Parts: sequence; C-alpha cells; structure tokens
Amino acid sequence: MKTKAAVAWKSGAPLTIETVDLEGPKFGEVLVEIKATGICHTDYYTLSGADPEGIFPAILGHEGAGIVVDVGPGVTTLKKGDHVIPLYTPECRQCKLCLSRKTNLCQLIRGTQGKGLMPDGTSRFSLDGKPIAHYMGTSTFSNYTVAPEISLAKIREDAPFDKVCYIGCGVTTGIGAVIFTAKVEAGANVVVFGLGGIGLNVIQGAKMVGADKIIGIDLNPAREEMARKFGMTHFLNPKDHENIVDAIVQLTDGGADYSFECIGNTKVMRQALECTHKGWGRSIIIGVAEAGAEISTRPFQLVTGRKWEGSAFGGARGRTDVPKIVDWYMEGKIDIDSLITHTMPLEKINEGFDLMKRGESIRGVVLY
Amino acid sequence: MKTKAAVAWKSGAPLTIETVDLEGPKFGEVLVEIKATGICHTDYYTLSGADPEGIFPAILGHEGAGIVVDVGPGVTTLKKGDHVIPLYTPECRQCKLCLSRKTNLCQLIRGTQGKGLMPDGTSRFSLDGKPIAHYMGTSTFSNYTVAPEISLAKIREDAPFDKVCYIGCGVTTGIGAVIFTAKVEAGANVVVFGLGGIGLNVIQGAKMVGADKIIGIDLNPAREEMARKFGMTHFLNPKDHENIVDAIVQLTDGGADYSFECIGNTKVMRQALECTHKGWGRSIIIGVAEAGAEISTRPFQLVTGRKWEGSAFGGARGRTDVPKIVDWYMEGKIDIDSLITHTMPLEKINEGFDLMKRGESIRGVVLY
Repeated sequence: MKTKAAVAWKSGAPLTIETVDLEGPKFGEVLVEIKATGICHTDYYTLSGADPEGIFPAILGHEGAGIVVDVGPGVTTLKKGDHVIPLYTPECRQCKLCLSRKTNLCQLIRGTQGKGLMPDGTSRFSLDGKPIAHYMGTSTFSNYTVAPEISLAKIREDAPFDKVCYIGCGVTTGIGAVIFTAKVEAGANVVVFGLGGIGLNVIQGAKMVGADKIIGIDLNPAREEMARKFGMTHFLNPKDHENIVDAIVQLTDGGADYSFECIGNTKVMRQALECTHKGWGRSIIIGVAEAGAEISTRPFQLVTGRKWEGSAFGGARGRTDVPKIVDWYMEGKIDIDSLITHTMPLEKINEGFDLMKRGESIRGVVLY
Repeated sequence: MKTKAAVAWKSGAPLTIETVDLEGPKFGEVLVEIKATGICHTDYYTLSGADPEGIFPAILGHEGAGIVVDVGPGVTTLKKGDHVIPLYTPECRQCKLCLSRKTNLCQLIRGTQGKGLMPDGTSRFSLDGKPIAHYMGTSTFSNYTVAPEISLAKIREDAPFDKVCYIGCGVTTGIGAVIFTAKVEAGANVVVFGLGGIGLNVIQGAKMVGADKIIGIDLNPAREEMARKFGMTHFLNPKDHENIVDAIVQLTDGGADYSFECIGNTKVMRQALECTHKGWGRSIIIGVAEAGAEISTRPFQLVTGRKWEGSAFGGARGRTDVPKIVDWYMEGKIDIDSLITHTMPLEKINEGFDLMKRGESIRGVVLY
C-alpha cells in the first residue's frame, strides 16, 4: 500500500512529506493507522546527527496512537479495530530481561530495532524500490506503519488519540520514573531538575503518589507557573543560589529522598545525586546526555548511602503499564491536555520541530 | 585509673606504648576492658596521615572485643560483666537516620566522634594532664577504654574475644554488604573485586545466602587458594584478560547480578559497575578511595538499569546485627579463624602494622 510519511533523508535536513510504499504485516507484525503523534527531543536528537547510531533515510516518530488495520500471521493478542500505542520499548514477556521481573528493558528484538529493521531483518518502508529504515520500532511520522505485535500496547477505545499519544513516550517516562523506577512513597521529598515536559510529568507523578515537598529546579523562571499547576510546591532557580545543592539540602532538612534529572546535563546529574539525603537518597537519571559525556562524583557519596540509578521509558512494561496510564488519564488522575500546547498537520511537522527547539512548545502533536 | 595503650603521637610515626590516664565513664558511657583488637587498614589510613580528618595525639583501634567493667549514670542496657564489641557506627535508635529504617548510619554523636571526643565534648584519655583523642568512638588500642552505651553491642559470653573482635569491622563490613546492603538472593551471580580480608568476607557472605557463581578478581594469584576455601567458584586475574569487564560479562551470560569493590580504587569501581547486568545489576562500593579521587562512568550505564551504591559497616545496625553475626560464627555458618593469621601482644603492634602493609597478614590481632 501507499502511505503519507515525513522522511528524514539525512542528518540536519528538514523532513520531507512523501508518499512511500508500505508492505503489509509479516509474521508477528501488525499494520496500524497512526491517528496522532507527538514530536519529541529524541526524534530531533537523531535528526540532528548527534545520535551516533542514527540511520538515514528513515521515518522517525515514536510517540503515537492509532488503530489496528491488519494483522500478520501468528498475531494472537491484537485484532483489526483495536486501539494501540506503539512502544519503542517492547514487552515480549519471554526474554531473559522480561522474565527477570526486575526491568522493563525487553531485549528480544533489540538487535534489529536498533538497525531500523523489523525482526526478520528487513524494512516494510520503501520509495522507488529503495528501503527506508524504521525508527525505534515505531515510525509514527507515517500515517500507516507496521510494528511487531510485542511493540503495541492495546488501550481503551474511548481514549482520545491526540492526547494519549503522549503516553507513548514523555508522560510514561516522567510518571513512570516516579512510580515504576523509584517507587516514591507518600510523604517523600522529591527534587526535579528541569521543568520541561518530562520534568512536569515527574512532578505530577510525585503529586499522584502523595509526595510532601516537590521541588522544581530550572534556570528559566517562566517554567515556575506551569510546574506549580502540576503540583510543584517549591521552586529554586540556580541563578539565585550560590550553591544549589546546599540550598536543596537546607530546604529538605538534610537532603531529598529522591531526585530526578530530566535535562541530560552530566553536571546537573552530579548535583542531583549530591542533593539527596545521606543514608537513603536515590537519584534517578532520566535525561539523555550527549554522546561521550560522563558523570562523576566522590565515592564517599555512595558509601554514605546515596544511590545513583537511571530510568528508561519510566521503567514501564509497555503492554502491561501503558494501558494503566491511559486509565489514569481518563480517570482524571493525571493531566495531559495542558501539556499539549500545539497541534499541526503532518505537512507542518518541521514547524513543530522548530517550536520545540526554541522551547516554545511543551509538546507539539501531529494530527493525521 | 591508669591503662596501657598504644598512642599515635603524629602521622607517619610508629605507635608508642604508654601508661595513660583514663577517666571513668560519665553519663551514658561505659568503661570496657578490651581483651583483643584487630589491626585494620583504616587505622593505618589515619596513622599514615592520608586521612584529612585524622587527629593527633590519639589512641587508634576500632575492631575490639571486651568486658564491661563499669557503667556511668543513665546506662540501662549494659551492666558490669557484659561482653561487648565496640561500634564505630553507633545505633541510638532515636535519631532521624536510625528511625528512617533505611540506613545504619546513626548520626546522634557523629559530630563529637569525628573530633575524637566523647558526646559531652571532652576526652577521657590524657597523659601528664594533656588530653589524648579518642578514635572512631572506640580506641581499642587501649587495654581499657570508655565508649558511649550506644556504641557497644552486647554479645554472647561464650564467644572468644580473639576471634569475634574481627566482627567489629572487617567481617561485618564484608558479610553485611552482601546480606544487609545488597540483600543478595540465592542463585545470584556475584563478582568480588579484591580478595583481601573484606573480599573474603564478601565471598563467605555470598556463599551463606546461596549465590550461584561467586567470581573473585585479584592481581595476586596467591589469593586464589584461600578465596576458593571461602566459597569462590571462579577466579579471574585482570593480567590474564585484555578486558576484565568483557571477561566477566561472558562468564555471567550478560553481566553480574551484584558486584562488590573491596579495594578502594576508583578505576576498579568503574569496572565493578560496568560488569553488572543491564536492567538490574547492582554495584556496591565498599573500599575507601584516596581523598579527592572520583568515580565516573557514562550515564547510559545507569539509564539502562545498573545501580551504583555503597556500603558502610556492611549496612549493619551495630547493636542489632553484630550479635547476630557473632551467633553465625558460633554456629559455624561463617569462618573467622582462618582469617586471623597473626596474633601479638600490644608491645608488638607496630609489627602488626608492618605485616598488614606488606600484605602478609589477612588479619593481625592484638591480645591483651
């Protein structure tokens, strides 16, 4: 079949809208009509050329929602008409990592996904007979896409695509880091470094589980208002404090119980660790640092009881946990609507990237 | 009263045996006759001058066992004749850290202990009217010593002082890191970097809880034999492998479940983290690095699920857990006898330091 898609031909260049060829789903695969997709910093990270594992040409996009149009042989858990969110972190429920019960990082198809291919080692996308790579197993910048069955979470049918697509990445990454990775408990003091989309979702996750102080840190004072709406109780701007770590330690009577780094800055990652409480502080890295950058600290920080950890896709098992987060949204436990500041048709996707790069959008969403 | 003690007059100088003055126990304090004391690297770290917080003159020693001779007013949990192990990590059971249930790092008397003083801000030791500092709240290089009640673990009376003194530091630090800090489960794969006294105790802790592979790493091939007796199942010498991290990852089918750094080398700490399994590997720093040294890694190591942690005094709450470890020794669950390779009278304590510095002893013990 033919489908409209935004194609990334090479790093640094704008996407172009093309009508590409899409093969039908093979064994264990599913054809999905994407109804809406967010534009995420990770798409830009790859498009910019900063991602050393970036592949071109490719169809980017990993934060979508849509409807199953067709299923390939062997597919047993999805059928035509099901509403789904594609998962860049699949959940096969049979690999060593899924069966460990200790991580969400399914590895069954990691090799082919990282190469921009379906599990059989080929691509379903092409133009003029030349293959175009998939991206993160999702390629939601195409109106129709093919994904493995294990890379699709089935969600309730009354959930609006233009909102819950954000659960495909940002919402889950932030809320999940609080709930699934850190398992923050009621009464805990939480510090959030970086009040962009991820940081705001960390804040509403912390509020949802009953955290006490929820302290937001950002260099941009304009971020304070929105963050307070999401549950932030205290705002600190590093520009106003000689030593932001000391300021946090004072505000929390010895240090935060949990901190979350939502920027990708290795210096901030160190501050996030060192502002936590002796004996039990846990610091969770969410942000993606530039290639080659390293974190460092004195080992004394760890020997005295702080723990340095990380979170990918919020520690969420996609097929199990994403439908729960959709429920939380539908039940009014979490807010997504306020975070989707811009919508646009696929033809204006490059403008959506520009809004994000200029920091003007929290989340821009393409509506097909 | 008068007591014989080994005094550290200044950094780098040998200890000298003196008859010093010892005041009786004040409120909340206890007078203890030390029967035996180990000589530990931490004593040498301070004596050498490398410890930036070292105080002189002082009476070092923190790995002892003895008998209560007298108690000061207000002491309710100990009486004359009780057998005790002094604790450099006290357990007050009432400070914020004790009550958190998340750490063993009691902070009630941390300020005065760090200054070489009893909780009232004075020293009980003196010579010719000039005060001599306490050390780590224990000062077990004195035949008689005064310690706070909260810094003494009451132990069973049939336990031999010349063996269980080692539970005052090394045994608990190693076994506790496995059992109390990491909570290693049966079937886990464990890697131990450094097969000195601490490493051997980590190994026997891992064996005690039913670990599967217990892999020891050391540059010294002579360490292999003893480590195998304690439960090590595989030995790797970094000299024999181009990349020790890769060698461990291969041996463990993807990485260790737990690793323990028992050396104090920040480069090894990085290897210890990076040899653990994606998704759930936990690396515990036990070794004390030189002042100012830093650990570093790529944040990707943490975002993909490894956790970097530390352990002090094995995560053991001294008054609660040390008596349990004494029981484990008396019941034959753990071996201490093989680790105590040398004993000596106080007059030969400098020879004990020399044996340790040359790597000839695992543990040398002074018998009073």
